[in-house]
Amino acid sequence: MNNIALITNISNYINLTPKEEELLLSKVKLEKFLKGQYVSQGGDICKYINFVISGSLKSFHLDNEGNEHILAFAIKDWWIGDLGSFAAQKPADYTIQCIENCELAQLSYEDLQFLFIEIPKLERFFRIVIQNAYVYFQRRIIDNLSLTAKEKYVNFISLYPQFERRVPQYMIASYLGFTPEFLSKIKKEISSKSSKS
Amino acid sequence: MNNIALITNISNYINLTPKEEELLLSKVKLEKFLKGQYVSQGGDICKYINFVISGSLKSFHLDNEGNEHILAFAIKDWWIGDLGSFAAQKPADYTIQCIENCELAQLSYEDLQFLFIEIPKLERFFRIVIQNAYVYFQRRIIDNLSLTAKEKYVNFISLYPQFERRVPQYMIASYLGFTPEFLSKIKKEISSKSSKS
Repeated sequence: MNNIALITNISNYINLTPKEEELLLSKVKLEKFLKGQYVSQGGDICKYINFVISGSLKSFHLDNEGNEHILAFAIKDWWIGDLGSFAAQKPADYTIQCIENCELAQLSYEDLQFLFIEIPKLERFFRIVIQNAYVYFQRRIIDNLSLTAKEKYVNFISLYPQFERRVPQYMIASYLGFTPEFLSKIKKEISSKSSKS
Repeated sequence: MNNIALITNISNYINLTPKEEELLLSKVKLEKFLKGQYVSQGGDICKYINFVISGSLKSFHLDNEGNEHILAFAIKDWWIGDLGSFAAQKPADYTIQCIENCELAQLSYEDLQFLFIEIPKLERFFRIVIQNAYVYFQRRIIDNLSLTAKEKYVNFISLYPQFERRVPQYMIASYLGFTPEFLSKIKKEISSKSSKS
């Protein structure tokens, strides 16, 4: 397990000098998590933002009835964390849990604040990463408002074909705001149509 | 019309020297828009990000049937723009339109890139502004997945009491993903309950 993927990810947007790379990596905590393990929990302060080296994860919110609502998935080369909790160091709304065994590169709040001072261009990097995530979430809100249930599912699997194979169906249903039964019905409709054509 | 509100907004997160303030303000375009006027249109490149000095605006997506889906509202001291279009300088998904007469402080893409080089700490400012917006959109996705229609409305008016007075009901309905008739029904239910208690 190493940090090459993290440095490659960062160098998509900013250039680090070898010294800056070294300083950054000295603050990164490499951790392995098992399938089902919690990386951070709703109600606790989210201490780390996590870069995914391998595996897959979900972030979700538990409502008052104990229902799980999936906010996001993350796979290799994605960032995941409860950013609201992390940035304000207040109790988290979301729980981050591993769907598969995971290797994560973690940055703590204190270390990231230190790095923002020592390597100010990291502000640019995170500005762009968060901006991309923000644009994606805008799209998701509009899709929720404007697409039919079937269109939402087709849209999801065309955007993220890898999730369809790796993520249990009931989680995809939760992400789309469907019951598992409703997702199953939609999938049957789609496959019966495509087998007829 | 002046830029004091913009400088106050920025100084919530970063400290600008008088020289930096002057440079920034030299790039800001102050513009007045009338109620109903378009600030930027879906399909065109979103040329400016806009800081609201006065008035109110909405950003919306038109679906293939010509239905308007409201993504966001903005009032005094908020930022609004199609960030995906602005950042990638590609055609916009969203249209920005004034609900009331507006005064906006606008920054063009080219000028903002110039300012990021000249005043790198502006990266920090926009990182935090976008981060706050991102956290808010996460909350909105989860609310959409987990709340009942009535809870969504109550949540909206408690978060944004000023919108209830200033924004037409059909726009609030669109923002919440309701038909105007459905919103009207929910409001009647709430007022009949509160008059009984």
